[in-house]
Amino acid sequence: MIKREVAVIGIGTTKFGELWDKSLRALGMEAGLKAIKDAGIYSQDLEALYIGNMSGGRFIQQEHIAPLISDYVGLASYHLPAVKVEAGGASGGLAFHQAYAAVASGLYDIVLVGGAEKMTDVGENEASAILATSLDQEWEAFFGVTVASLYAMMARRHIYEYGTTREQLAEVAVKNHYHASMNPDAQFRKPISKDVVLNANVVASPLGVFDCAPISDGAAALVLCPLKRAKEFTERPVKVAASAVATDTIALHHRKSLTTMLSTVKASERAYKMAGIKPSEIDVAEVHDSFTISEIMAIEDLGFFKKGEGGRAVEEKRTYLNCEISINTSGGLKARGQPVGATGVAQIVEIVQQLRGEAGKRQLKEAERGLTHNLGGTGATAVVNILEVI
Amino acid sequence: MIKREVAVIGIGTTKFGELWDKSLRALGMEAGLKAIKDAGIYSQDLEALYIGNMSGGRFIQQEHIAPLISDYVGLASYHLPAVKVEAGGASGGLAFHQAYAAVASGLYDIVLVGGAEKMTDVGENEASAILATSLDQEWEAFFGVTVASLYAMMARRHIYEYGTTREQLAEVAVKNHYHASMNPDAQFRKPISKDVVLNANVVASPLGVFDCAPISDGAAALVLCPLKRAKEFTERPVKVAASAVATDTIALHHRKSLTTMLSTVKASERAYKMAGIKPSEIDVAEVHDSFTISEIMAIEDLGFFKKGEGGRAVEEKRTYLNCEISINTSGGLKARGQPVGATGVAQIVEIVQQLRGEAGKRQLKEAERGLTHNLGGTGATAVVNILEVI
Repeated sequence: MIKREVAVIGIGTTKFGELWDKSLRALGMEAGLKAIKDAGIYSQDLEALYIGNMSGGRFIQQEHIAPLISDYVGLASYHLPAVKVEAGGASGGLAFHQAYAAVASGLYDIVLVGGAEKMTDVGENEASAILATSLDQEWEAFFGVTVASLYAMMARRHIYEYGTTREQLAEVAVKNHYHASMNPDAQFRKPISKDVVLNANVVASPLGVFDCAPISDGAAALVLCPLKRAKEFTERPVKVAASAVATDTIALHHRKSLTTMLSTVKASERAYKMAGIKPSEIDVAEVHDSFTISEIMAIEDLGFFKKGEGGRAVEEKRTYLNCEISINTSGGLKARGQPVGATGVAQIVEIVQQLRGEAGKRQLKEAERGLTHNLGGTGATAVVNILEVI
Repeated sequence: MIKREVAVIGIGTTKFGELWDKSLRALGMEAGLKAIKDAGIYSQDLEALYIGNMSGGRFIQQEHIAPLISDYVGLASYHLPAVKVEAGGASGGLAFHQAYAAVASGLYDIVLVGGAEKMTDVGENEASAILATSLDQEWEAFFGVTVASLYAMMARRHIYEYGTTREQLAEVAVKNHYHASMNPDAQFRKPISKDVVLNANVVASPLGVFDCAPISDGAAALVLCPLKRAKEFTERPVKVAASAVATDTIALHHRKSLTTMLSTVKASERAYKMAGIKPSEIDVAEVHDSFTISEIMAIEDLGFFKKGEGGRAVEEKRTYLNCEISINTSGGLKARGQPVGATGVAQIVEIVQQLRGEAGKRQLKEAERGLTHNLGGTGATAVVNILEVI
């Protein structure tokens, strides 16, 4: 099925945050040019672009973003194929998957993957409504349901079924803010205490403000090429050991379980099989912590912990940097920030930094293999990628 | 680069029009299930879905459409990879290109390609603003420019440079309405006279209402598989001889010419090279006639006629059914209708119908090879595909 192995040879990211003075195209350009420079290639070496963006049409009245980014990184006169991919919050991860498949199958050699979102040009209520377009509009969002309220239902059910506690949810935020305090590109760089999380304004009970990832601007980019050619460009290529996608019903109420995301389970099973490894062989993972409950469910569904034991694992600090498995060393969506279309690409940037030994203060002592997990909606799309030092 | 040849084994389309009683998901389901049935496969034979949709986020507050369609055609429990692709008006063509590449490269065997748009849930001004998100928002649309007004500029310049006449523009609409009168799925099924076009309300001079493709609802779908396996499913597979994409600057004012679209030129050059043919070997083509001027520029840029001679060729009826080259036998975007994300897929449905000999009253006498040409914005994306009888 896959003809050849693929490597990441270049990475680039903007800071994430409320970047009032930067447009989407400026962010895309910054991340893209950084990745091109980091890969040691010229722009004209690129053969195609894959861009993840969720809702430029509503956030900034701009669809058709792939040729826009190609244009603004200086490639218009090469008339390259440029493809925008959208899958709600999984747009970036899915754009990476498409680019990976294109290189793995022999279609192109050198491709740019970008993810970008500019969310702060609209108010918070509008942003919440836009994010809810990744749900089932007719049967969920139309009735006023938001993404946060559906994840709150999952949290309630997880508490009911497995005895997960409110404090355990809070510990996810505490950990991720602590990790982000060591990430110069993160949106929130102050450690917070559990009391801050527990006493914050409620968004959708039991989730408070500090249980929810923020609204952010930002972009991230990668350059991919066949593994065999990687050493032409860099001393430190990172191998893509697996990339897999799985979908599920668009509406949460059509699923068999509120506490297991089958899309995550299926995508990760496919990825582990592709890479020929077990979950225990992963050193570091960026998982989709759009809400604190999302991280707990993810580390269970990815097979790092048994179902129902995710909350306790976090509380026992088994998922901190340099502990049993390092989860969201970047700060995650929660504290690094969540420019939706950029998230899946930024996760891979973090793993590559860790595997290259370039993660600064938050560098893992031993990092040989990392995983990324990116969700759209309430899990109608899940993308799981595995990266390895070679 | 390409490992194996690809065939279209199934086609499906809804009627196009103002379909007040059908939702996007109902349209997607109808076209998808028709294509699956036409291919003689079971839904569970599918390995992946590629969906073209331009702006569900703004037309119907629904992003994340790929898993939605997968869900509604009954595939949720298979957790298939499902990818939404967006490139303005070229979304459908680009989705097809992605699916083609996936099969050609050996990634998947049997895939569904869908294109869908539900445009009539918003008013005309809002629809016009949404379509303008495929332009450069910051330097074009923000200042009030619409897609129609930019194509009007191209028309003015084409008239100035080549002596193209207002009457020649009108003849495009007359021809395409005539073709659509023989297409039971078309939005407009009444032939019109040149006088009707010339005396219609002006949209952006010189373009009147009848020079512009309408706002439409509709969906179309295809099933692809490796050419070698095609005879397992159908007696009449159609071979995909080429599929190519090219981009250009997002803004019209950054191009060297207003009357030649380099994205069309480049994409078609790549496609002809891939198929090993010349433009004169094409019998039938569905080209992107979002405006009458678009068709004239397209038949020049695709190499069917010399630059500047497109208008006269239409006037001389060389592009009617069963004439020198049959252009837009379906009625085109102009009269078949233009549900934006569906357009590129519907074009391929028409060519397959012609090549199979299933086009009813509008059937070509001899059809061995057809081409589709799909544009986004003012040509920031162009997709050209070539299909052949085997």
